[in-house]
Amino acid sequence: MPITTVGLDADDTLWHCESIFRITHQRFNELLADFADPQTLEAALTLTESRNHEVYGYGAKGFTLSMLETALEVSDRNVSAAVLSEILAAGREIMTHPVEPLPGVREALEILAAERRLILITKGDLFHQETKLAASGLGEFFAAVEIVSEKNPNTYRNVFARHGTGAEQAAMAGNSMRSDVLPALEAGSYAALIPYPLVWRHEAADVPVDHPRYRELRSLADMPEWLARIA
Amino acid sequence: MPITTVGLDADDTLWHCESIFRITHQRFNELLADFADPQTLEAALTLTESRNHEVYGYGAKGFTLSMLETALEVSDRNVSAAVLSEILAAGREIMTHPVEPLPGVREALEILAAERRLILITKGDLFHQETKLAASGLGEFFAAVEIVSEKNPNTYRNVFARHGTGAEQAAMAGNSMRSDVLPALEAGSYAALIPYPLVWRHEAADVPVDHPRYRELRSLADMPEWLARIA
Repeated sequence: MPITTVGLDADDTLWHCESIFRITHQRFNELLADFADPQTLEAALTLTESRNHEVYGYGAKGFTLSMLETALEVSDRNVSAAVLSEILAAGREIMTHPVEPLPGVREALEILAAERRLILITKGDLFHQETKLAASGLGEFFAAVEIVSEKNPNTYRNVFARHGTGAEQAAMAGNSMRSDVLPALEAGSYAALIPYPLVWRHEAADVPVDHPRYRELRSLADMPEWLARIA
Repeated sequence: MPITTVGLDADDTLWHCESIFRITHQRFNELLADFADPQTLEAALTLTESRNHEVYGYGAKGFTLSMLETALEVSDRNVSAAVLSEILAAGREIMTHPVEPLPGVREALEILAAERRLILITKGDLFHQETKLAASGLGEFFAAVEIVSEKNPNTYRNVFARHGTGAEQAAMAGNSMRSDVLPALEAGSYAALIPYPLVWRHEAADVPVDHPRYRELRSLADMPEWLARIA
């Protein structure tokens, strides 16, 4: 069966995103150096984030609120208003940071979009993701944009049914094994992992072994050839 | 032509929302009473919100960030960490506040959903809106949920084409003349305004005069009868 539809993750698949979060983490650690060492701060921030996840969901705004909460907490409310102001500004910078497509992405999208229906499938803030897509200049290649609160097999089944010809004739690509690859495979789609350099390597146990519909690609540029071979 | 599809706004149409924002505004004014009077604070917060709108979009998280920024600004960064902590908690409360359907809404949805396809069409945080729909217990009545970044005529054309039989066979209802009524009418749909008590009365100039597809309703409970008459 030919692949009619291609789902693509956005952050760290089409453009850099993790890198700005890393920079913000470093800035956060510097700003609070009077109160704790970087390791303690990272651990506290991770804890706040996971505690807040069911209230804030994914995205830069929730992350900023979690940074502020952590700063108040680790300083036992002794952090200065100036530092909190800097954290607020650092969070804002995540949202206004220029959107830089990863190397080869634009060219790959041109080829993919000529032959198949492309759908952007991403988590996070609706508003921020739409802003980023517009800023990236890549919007024209996509037939649809789906911003979802969770990526599970049903998400992929629904999106590929609504915008394409079903999950069996679709391929998903992204940098997350857990969000982009495994649930898409479970939905019956093909799926490619395109690792992003800054993200920790997935554990070996996670990798689908000899799965006929799975492939790891070095870059989106390798996707057109892979899809051509499927048919 | 029969109405096959009904679009419904969420906040202040299906459940209370403005009321918790009002309470939060009051709390904000009390917390910063040392620095400015309520009127000055309201004006400053409104200014911050409109300045931030293109970065944060709509929703409770962006509103919380704007409250924090305003507090730092009006106090010339002299606000205490304790007060900022209270503001953070007040914002969080907006997101965890119980979702209370407006009187008659559940019964009206039962009738509407039996005869037509219901679509929730709302702005705001994707994650927060999905959480609220789940908490409201009204999710079962909706065939689709569309969380959009703007409500303009094209939004309604696309949503009613995708989930229904086109804008001409659809009716939209909500509490905002500007977001729910006027763009839906322009898209070719029927539209009903269901005013929410706390919201300032729309100016008379905004009201569609003698528009054959417009109606003001006192409550969602009046919608089934109106739709039945259209066909």
